[in-house]
Amino acid sequence: MLHVAVVCAGYNSSREIVTLMKSVLFYRKNPLHLHLITDAIARNILETLFRTWMVPAVVVSFYDAEELKPLVSWIPNKHYSGLYGLMKLVLPSILPLSLARVIVLDTDVTFSSDIVELWAFFGHFSDKQVVGLVENQSDWYLGNLWKNHRPWPALGRGFNTGVILLWLDRLQQTGWEQVWKLTAKRELLTQTATSLADQDIFNAVIKEHPELVHPLPCVWNVQLSDHTLAERCYLEAADLKVIHWNSPKKLQVKNKHAEFFRSLHLTFLGYDGKLLRREPFGCPNHFPPGAEQLQQALAQLDEEEPCFEFRQQQLTVHRVHITFLSYQPPPPQPHDVTLVAQLSMDRLQMLEALCRHWPGPMSLALYLTDAEAQQFLHFVDMSPVLSVRKDVAYHVVYRDGPLYPVNQLRNVALAQALTPYVFLSDIDFLPAYSLYDYLRASIEQLELGGRRKAALVVPAFETLHYRFSFPKSKAELLTLLDAGSLHTFRYHEWPQGHASTDYSRWREAQAPYRVQWSAHYEPYVVVPRDCPRYDPRFVGFGWNKVAHIIELDAQEYEFLVLPEAFSIHLPHAPSLDISRFRSSPTYRDCLQALKEEFHQDLSRRYGSAALKYLTALQLSRSRA
Amino acid sequence: MLHVAVVCAGYNSSREIVTLMKSVLFYRKNPLHLHLITDAIARNILETLFRTWMVPAVVVSFYDAEELKPLVSWIPNKHYSGLYGLMKLVLPSILPLSLARVIVLDTDVTFSSDIVELWAFFGHFSDKQVVGLVENQSDWYLGNLWKNHRPWPALGRGFNTGVILLWLDRLQQTGWEQVWKLTAKRELLTQTATSLADQDIFNAVIKEHPELVHPLPCVWNVQLSDHTLAERCYLEAADLKVIHWNSPKKLQVKNKHAEFFRSLHLTFLGYDGKLLRREPFGCPNHFPPGAEQLQQALAQLDEEEPCFEFRQQQLTVHRVHITFLSYQPPPPQPHDVTLVAQLSMDRLQMLEALCRHWPGPMSLALYLTDAEAQQFLHFVDMSPVLSVRKDVAYHVVYRDGPLYPVNQLRNVALAQALTPYVFLSDIDFLPAYSLYDYLRASIEQLELGGRRKAALVVPAFETLHYRFSFPKSKAELLTLLDAGSLHTFRYHEWPQGHASTDYSRWREAQAPYRVQWSAHYEPYVVVPRDCPRYDPRFVGFGWNKVAHIIELDAQEYEFLVLPEAFSIHLPHAPSLDISRFRSSPTYRDCLQALKEEFHQDLSRRYGSAALKYLTALQLSRSRA
Repeated sequence: MLHVAVVCAGYNSSREIVTLMKSVLFYRKNPLHLHLITDAIARNILETLFRTWMVPAVVVSFYDAEELKPLVSWIPNKHYSGLYGLMKLVLPSILPLSLARVIVLDTDVTFSSDIVELWAFFGHFSDKQVVGLVENQSDWYLGNLWKNHRPWPALGRGFNTGVILLWLDRLQQTGWEQVWKLTAKRELLTQTATSLADQDIFNAVIKEHPELVHPLPCVWNVQLSDHTLAERCYLEAADLKVIHWNSPKKLQVKNKHAEFFRSLHLTFLGYDGKLLRREPFGCPNHFPPGAEQLQQALAQLDEEEPCFEFRQQQLTVHRVHITFLSYQPPPPQPHDVTLVAQLSMDRLQMLEALCRHWPGPMSLALYLTDAEAQQFLHFVDMSPVLSVRKDVAYHVVYRDGPLYPVNQLRNVALAQALTPYVFLSDIDFLPAYSLYDYLRASIEQLELGGRRKAALVVPAFETLHYRFSFPKSKAELLTLLDAGSLHTFRYHEWPQGHASTDYSRWREAQAPYRVQWSAHYEPYVVVPRDCPRYDPRFVGFGWNKVAHIIELDAQEYEFLVLPEAFSIHLPHAPSLDISRFRSSPTYRDCLQALKEEFHQDLSRRYGSAALKYLTALQLSRSRA
Repeated sequence: MLHVAVVCAGYNSSREIVTLMKSVLFYRKNPLHLHLITDAIARNILETLFRTWMVPAVVVSFYDAEELKPLVSWIPNKHYSGLYGLMKLVLPSILPLSLARVIVLDTDVTFSSDIVELWAFFGHFSDKQVVGLVENQSDWYLGNLWKNHRPWPALGRGFNTGVILLWLDRLQQTGWEQVWKLTAKRELLTQTATSLADQDIFNAVIKEHPELVHPLPCVWNVQLSDHTLAERCYLEAADLKVIHWNSPKKLQVKNKHAEFFRSLHLTFLGYDGKLLRREPFGCPNHFPPGAEQLQQALAQLDEEEPCFEFRQQQLTVHRVHITFLSYQPPPPQPHDVTLVAQLSMDRLQMLEALCRHWPGPMSLALYLTDAEAQQFLHFVDMSPVLSVRKDVAYHVVYRDGPLYPVNQLRNVALAQALTPYVFLSDIDFLPAYSLYDYLRASIEQLELGGRRKAALVVPAFETLHYRFSFPKSKAELLTLLDAGSLHTFRYHEWPQGHASTDYSRWREAQAPYRVQWSAHYEPYVVVPRDCPRYDPRFVGFGWNKVAHIIELDAQEYEFLVLPEAFSIHLPHAPSLDISRFRSSPTYRDCLQALKEEFHQDLSRRYGSAALKYLTALQLSRSRA
């Protein structure tokens, strides 16, 4: 079992560490124990990520970076890593005492070899050595980079702390805490601050106590900083082990072999993390919680069964990376509403329009491959509309399997909504410009905060035109409707879906009115955040919203249609799943089987009260 | 420089070898020379693939498998590899005499290590040894697998020939050709045929001349066949080097560590081959033709320039895998027409409908990532409509860059059309059911075979409805048009695009009629296969077809509208590119710059005759 510690804080580092870990896991052959020192943001993201990643023979422990802050906050520091960089100095005070040795990594390194080879260097430490480091590969500590450059003291070129072998129990014995503090305080008498965070202090200590350091071969930390001399290292050694993107320019750094290094890094950036769920040889029974049961359940599926793909998709545990991009949660407000929706790559172009129509918080689940997640990142960076919106939380659910797991995606987005209310929408709908304000006002007026269980219905319309002038008001909408440029949603194909909304009553309505559930009803609704989840058995096309609305009705939510609310569906090509539904009788049979199971579950949970849903379904079928 | 020989024939092996080569290239650090013994199909595919792949320090030589057929066709063989399996026996007679040593690989192996380590075993050969092999990992040659199983003779468990180290010049010296032929002929007196192709004969020879073989460690050919004992090998050796999918079940084979092996294989199946364009260290100046100029051109681009993305996309050389799936070229017919179009993953659902509407040959370019290409393969396999259509050629162009290279894709599809005429369509259009027959009849009647240069215009319509009953005839189409359920294409948004087609004349027309070019004209046309190519400078949205139609007009093609031809556009969401065009002034400016460059080129090539296009454009702009 090898131990690895990483300090990780914030959204960007939480993405970086995933790529680092992919590269480590790709080459490793041993069980690993990860010790992650995180802020609240990174912990939230990485707990979900590792729980859903289910990598065998990987244990993850979290430590609260807050606890370490007081230990290092007295040190003035100019490095971009801030306080978090300095925390590597005080790891011995937070890691368990039982932990004798640990490899400490920065999030901006990429492995191209098995980490056990690095671990093996502990075996070469002399009795006195407590820290293994690679020499610094720029002239920084020589102090000749530019005029008046006065770096901290260092032994020769100094050492880089992106990759550290730390012999923890020996550090304790040598009184490490006293040693580095004394050195730091003394240097700070003449230096205003650390420039390179922990690295300056490590180097100052080593300058004084050279016996503490075990120098590592340079290939274990090939530094791609701006003035790097790394070339000298690997031209001789030929075999790269760890690459360190230690320029603030990261992948954009210019360098003789930049393309080569970039391609190594991009390999893991786009690598399908699911493939790392493989079990290393020779260490069986290292399954993470749930993984073994899952494997057994999957193994019991009959591949010849016609609905095999459905069964498999339902069982699939997708890796989930919540809040993939920088995000500022909305301030708590009693009537606030988050728009909840899900999408895949082919709907990215909806996001800008959606942002223009909905100025409030959003929680969106994106179903992407690892490579697509990077394209998505680029897309948001490039968009002036999206890049400034910090109240939109994007949750990446990684693709796995042939059917779109629509309800699993909705549940991820729903679980991450932080306001008391959610507007459960679909990505192809644009809400009325006023909807966000109107919903908050309505929630307040209707006093939904109390014990009243209500689902506010937002009537749905559709346009068949690509270019179309969005109505500014209900009056304008009605005019367009009468002119035939707008229709009630799916009026031609599936009027049952929204029949209960009673569009003709809505035309005249001045106040919210209550409507009754009827078969196939699937309105877009605003409900409290703690509403029932979507039924994850519905994958692909069909019945995914219908089942949720039945659930709301069974739990006695009132359906209240809002007289001024509306949202409009924009045209798009039929999805792959709807095409399969239409063309494949097997697909339709499987959906039918799911519906029947759903009704059985419903009557188990709600008894005879659930009978009405089955009867309604049968009635509507006999009429059709 | 390491030499690797692979026998590769047909469509499936041409896909397999790509995955094999990705795994080899991922780990290799040396220059490689690939010797590919191919049939015409594989050669056609792989020449294009390697030329466009542009991997540094890889030389590829092709050898015609036809030449080897007579040397092995006399051997009766029951193995699924057919004659091609046997060809490994006669490699010395086709590879250059100067080639002393070569590694011979089956297409169904995956590397998980640097091939130079395998090459190093040549250094351990004794003077007599000529062939390096791994022991067979099933009981096949022990003859106890089932009753009456009488395998060919072998030394112990025998050897597997999926990975061979072949010392070619020594083989020549030992009279290899005589040796194996004599052995084979003698065994065939009692055996009816080889069961495992070349492997049976290699083993029979080795049984007689054990001094010829150098046994290799088993990790260099871990055999995942049905009755494999491979587990014994890697449980001891711990370090896998090469995996051999030698069961006919391939990746579906059941096996204790199947998931582990599958994930290794899937790693390379989905790996972005572009990342392998990296130059290995220590061997510079091994650039393939064109690669160095390309790199220089890319390096000269100014990243700060607003149209940088356009410039970069235009220069990008995409890897191209033509005829990705099994394909039967249409028999030569003088008036036959191929439908030509391009698409990406989000339009896969159009393919089945397209196949129902167009019973003739098609040439389709697909813009995909490596991982998407595998999803596409699965999609076609699963579709009863697509899997039976062998007259549809699918050409995969691998994604690279942010803009859709629409005209490069069209040119790939166009270049691969094999009929004398092509129908240049778009993937969102469904042709009239009768169009294929009608076009062939029209070409014949109009005597287009002669010197007449004509572009037959297929009038374009559109529906805004998802579900829609496709008109069976022109009469039905006109009824739908009058009822407002159909429109002429882009009637609301961009009538200029098809104005010249003159829809009102078309209503009444009984015979083809000639129309004149006008500004913005972009009809869908049928032209001879040798028509001008599309201008690849137009990437993303806008002007890609317009420029091609101008080119046809400039080359004096007559535009003849066919009175019974039509095709109908189905609704879809706006593409990412059209969304960017609409929302980004920079995007529009860049497109404008492209147009201007196009017009400059046009006047360079056609002189004053090209003036009319510029004037028309300026006129239409001043009117707008």
